[in-house]
Amino acid sequence: MSYEEFTIEGRNAVTEAFRAGRTIDKLYVLDGCQDGPVLTIKREAAKQGTIIKYVKRERLDQMSETGKHQGVIAVAAAYGYAEVEDILAAAEKKGEPPFVILLDNIEDPHNLGAIIRTANLAGAHGVIIPKNHAVGLTATVAKTSAGALNYTPVARVTNLARTIEDLKKRGLWFVCAHMEGTLMYELDLKGPVGLVIGSEGEGVSRLVREKCDMTAAIPMRGSIDSLNASVAAGVLSYEILRQRLNL
Amino acid sequence: MSYEEFTIEGRNAVTEAFRAGRTIDKLYVLDGCQDGPVLTIKREAAKQGTIIKYVKRERLDQMSETGKHQGVIAVAAAYGYAEVEDILAAAEKKGEPPFVILLDNIEDPHNLGAIIRTANLAGAHGVIIPKNHAVGLTATVAKTSAGALNYTPVARVTNLARTIEDLKKRGLWFVCAHMEGTLMYELDLKGPVGLVIGSEGEGVSRLVREKCDMTAAIPMRGSIDSLNASVAAGVLSYEILRQRLNL
Repeated sequence: MSYEEFTIEGRNAVTEAFRAGRTIDKLYVLDGCQDGPVLTIKREAAKQGTIIKYVKRERLDQMSETGKHQGVIAVAAAYGYAEVEDILAAAEKKGEPPFVILLDNIEDPHNLGAIIRTANLAGAHGVIIPKNHAVGLTATVAKTSAGALNYTPVARVTNLARTIEDLKKRGLWFVCAHMEGTLMYELDLKGPVGLVIGSEGEGVSRLVREKCDMTAAIPMRGSIDSLNASVAAGVLSYEILRQRLNL
Repeated sequence: MSYEEFTIEGRNAVTEAFRAGRTIDKLYVLDGCQDGPVLTIKREAAKQGTIIKYVKRERLDQMSETGKHQGVIAVAAAYGYAEVEDILAAAEKKGEPPFVILLDNIEDPHNLGAIIRTANLAGAHGVIIPKNHAVGLTATVAKTSAGALNYTPVARVTNLARTIEDLKKRGLWFVCAHMEGTLMYELDLKGPVGLVIGSEGEGVSRLVREKCDMTAAIPMRGSIDSLNASVAAGVLSYEILRQRLNL
């Protein structure tokens, strides 16, 4: 995986990026724009499953670094995405039961970067993020991950609930972080496990939570509601590692 | 503690802020500026032990929100600081052995905010930060702490190493986070404890590290060097809580 540019602007550049097979996280298109070249770009986006956002000219002007966006700005992944299979393969190669971290709607790039970093050090084999309502592998994420993106695969999926179902068939158990769950120390987290972390505002969404086998609570001794998402991911990941190390 | 303004500009406003006893984190003064009103401000700053930074006009212009800084900009704490005594008193009131988090050179306000939040939830009685080379209680810190600043006292000291010495006389043991230390699970962290967390780049400074009784390592299973500072603080704080809960 290598470091790449972040936004791509203008019709030719965006079309070429799609055709070169570059991973585009999001495509911003001028609302109401329906001419030939733009329709071509939208077709390419549909093929790749890229999220398209229709926005006003002011928004594009604001995002544009070159001032010549011609109604289209693509946001490219700074790093390439892995496949879910790559994550399972990494676990198998190490001879360890899979440990995957799944993120539901984490929108803050600093949190995503810190979680990839934690995943690397706590012995998780990869991170899975959803395509929609989530930050992708931007330059900020790469930077905040402090190099972990070079080692820890990050896969992006269309439907997190469906991915959980698929992985259950492969033997994984899913544990969801939730303050009203079972105290994390009382759960058995040694086997093949998927740890699901939600956004700070809304937590893990109902649909995803219902797919989980267990709900893990971090003890809360204070007066406020919740930990920062990357801190919560760190505390839970290290509880999984502690159990795996039999300590 | 209440929410307050963040920068104060202009000679009268800054002088008044000092005289009103407002906590000023830092004072920026135009380099070479030696006239009466500025000397008065510098005297007030010296009385309070405020850090003075001498900067060029361009820097002040850049920082200024009003455009009328007159050569002085004070950065005021968004929240008031507590005293170290307040932290010990909070522990005594709860009938718990003191658990204090000390931060050595944490400069990122998001990290400081997240750590205050963690301190609140992991049952720490307060946070101690140094005056110099560190971020103070700015508006960003207050926001990132998600309200924890209303409950968890934060004290600011001139010399972290000396504060550690003083607190040792009060019965606290100090444990410093360091990757080459003893695995955290093997340390006894149940008693009165001060947890020292360093900056991401440099870790805990030698002078402070030498004052510590123990060095705690978080297990590292990955390919990179270190966790994000607020994640490391979270993992270690929760190890202290786990031991205290006898789990």
